[in-house]
Amino acid sequence: MLPAGAAWEATLNTINRQVLLEQLPAGKLGAEHFRLTETAAPAPADGEVLVKSRYVALDAANRAWMLGATYRAGLSPGQVMAGASLVEVVDSRAPGFAPGDLAYTDHAGWQDYATLTADKLLRLEAMEPLTHLMSVYGVAGLTAYFGLLECGRPKAGETVVVSAAAGAVGSFVGQIAKLKGCRTVGIAGGAEKCALVTSEFGFDAAVDYKAHAGNGMGLYQALQAACGGGIDVYFDNVSGEILDTCLFAMNPHGRVALCGAVSMYDGGGMPYGVRGLAGAVSKRLSLRGFIVSDFYGQRQAALADLKSWVDSGQLKVREDVIDGLENLPAALIGLLAGENVGKRMVRV
Amino acid sequence: MLPAGAAWEATLNTINRQVLLEQLPAGKLGAEHFRLTETAAPAPADGEVLVKSRYVALDAANRAWMLGATYRAGLSPGQVMAGASLVEVVDSRAPGFAPGDLAYTDHAGWQDYATLTADKLLRLEAMEPLTHLMSVYGVAGLTAYFGLLECGRPKAGETVVVSAAAGAVGSFVGQIAKLKGCRTVGIAGGAEKCALVTSEFGFDAAVDYKAHAGNGMGLYQALQAACGGGIDVYFDNVSGEILDTCLFAMNPHGRVALCGAVSMYDGGGMPYGVRGLAGAVSKRLSLRGFIVSDFYGQRQAALADLKSWVDSGQLKVREDVIDGLENLPAALIGLLAGENVGKRMVRV
Repeated sequence: MLPAGAAWEATLNTINRQVLLEQLPAGKLGAEHFRLTETAAPAPADGEVLVKSRYVALDAANRAWMLGATYRAGLSPGQVMAGASLVEVVDSRAPGFAPGDLAYTDHAGWQDYATLTADKLLRLEAMEPLTHLMSVYGVAGLTAYFGLLECGRPKAGETVVVSAAAGAVGSFVGQIAKLKGCRTVGIAGGAEKCALVTSEFGFDAAVDYKAHAGNGMGLYQALQAACGGGIDVYFDNVSGEILDTCLFAMNPHGRVALCGAVSMYDGGGMPYGVRGLAGAVSKRLSLRGFIVSDFYGQRQAALADLKSWVDSGQLKVREDVIDGLENLPAALIGLLAGENVGKRMVRV
Repeated sequence: MLPAGAAWEATLNTINRQVLLEQLPAGKLGAEHFRLTETAAPAPADGEVLVKSRYVALDAANRAWMLGATYRAGLSPGQVMAGASLVEVVDSRAPGFAPGDLAYTDHAGWQDYATLTADKLLRLEAMEPLTHLMSVYGVAGLTAYFGLLECGRPKAGETVVVSAAAGAVGSFVGQIAKLKGCRTVGIAGGAEKCALVTSEFGFDAAVDYKAHAGNGMGLYQALQAACGGGIDVYFDNVSGEILDTCLFAMNPHGRVALCGAVSMYDGGGMPYGVRGLAGAVSKRLSLRGFIVSDFYGQRQAALADLKSWVDSGQLKVREDVIDGLENLPAALIGLLAGENVGKRMVRV
């Protein structure tokens, strides 16, 4: 635990470690694009809260923010690297927050301490384990829940395919689809992840896309075999060739939830040209891009569902927790290379 | 008028001209893929109706059917060329149909006479002009109506863009969008069509895609200028580079109605790779492929709306009527080359 508010004054001159985005990557993201620095921890002004980072989430979207403005401003060289985090209030000069309170924020970034106005913080109740606030009850769980149920609209008996199936979002998508009575197929990279997808996360089948690298027809055939026919709902985390192949394999009236495009984020160059859209008219496909926050009006109901599934043991939560703020760059670089299983985060 | 039913017996041995699809085109469709032949007109069996073709519609989809199975079986060499038509009952051995009745059918094809079971016919009331049953009150009008309103869901003040804007569907889409309070931009090929799009069909602006051939950025800039910003609803009749460019120009939460892909039908080769899908996540785009018949449950309400707009002069109906069954091949080839304005059909 941190020192209580009263004690905080004594700790000023505390060092605030920060990971700066030193330069924007032109190609693959590497350690050289970051720089660890130290400053004095800031003091909150009137209306502000001083928070200390507890857990920082690693998300493929972190890399996408380096490509320019999207649903948020693009990142700039020299700024503290942005990311979502679970923070603890250390000192508060804003109503509604007191030392010891926990909150979620997109605005603290990769550093030990930050001062934020209260509107940048979402109050969270403590729970055991705390990490679940950053995985199943955080962006990953809610993204899977809303993307699958609102955009994918699966019906019992249908076949649901998800890419990056061993990742946080993908593993939840498959399990929720299974809970809804669907046949589930996960696409993942490598035999080891594919084994986890079926054994740990209970998918009906897994397809190893790396076994079919550069062979779209091979991937298509493996997918058709794993699905026992076509795809009714495809939850896309990756875009590129895998999205394209899945589009060709869609059943009539199929739905595609467009969640992410991790295959496009880390390398530069033109986006992949998706040919499979050609069948969308005659097959009456619908594709829908979404951001989790679009559905935050239904957040409480979603969290209640997720909690009931976790509590009953029907939804397994796999987390990949790395210690040390200084390890954030390597954790993100590794995530983009696909080295994690489940929700990756750094404990600060 | 045709001979009444009683008189029909006397006309047996009537010649039935047929246009056969002699071979499937590998590349561009040409006159050599068709053959005009003559047989004796058939006689209806019990439960069948003998119909005479009055008008045959020309649709880009006719060419798509030559590419293989879609929402209907693919076409085969040697068969009577398929198409939608307005037919008149000549003789009936099925309940519910009597000589002189008019009907719409997808099953008579490119010939003077056909025998069909009653379930293949949709009864239509005669009206003046009869051709409107094949344009604004037929597939073209209903496709525009449902695709725009159900898939595009335009709101007043939004910007609606439609490709093939001088064609039958496109011209209705722009006019209906205008009636709904939208800013309308039509994409068409050539200065002459673009002038018609604004003067005759009342679009706010037109963009000549041929003026930007092979220059996607030029088309993008012309589109942005014509829209005064981005696109909220894009009604796609063409696919390919124009769809791609429009995707890049979509506003957040934009909707794309995928109606047709005429740029892909007549040439063979791989479908175009659409790169603009890359922005679909962060912009929360939705794309939806549809076929008009998906919405036939709402057909009567749609026809009532269309009729009220035509009667009040708010919806202009342009038709391109060519005489002679023997001219069907040239009429389709010309349609694929973009030579028509408004709904093209052949009077038999």
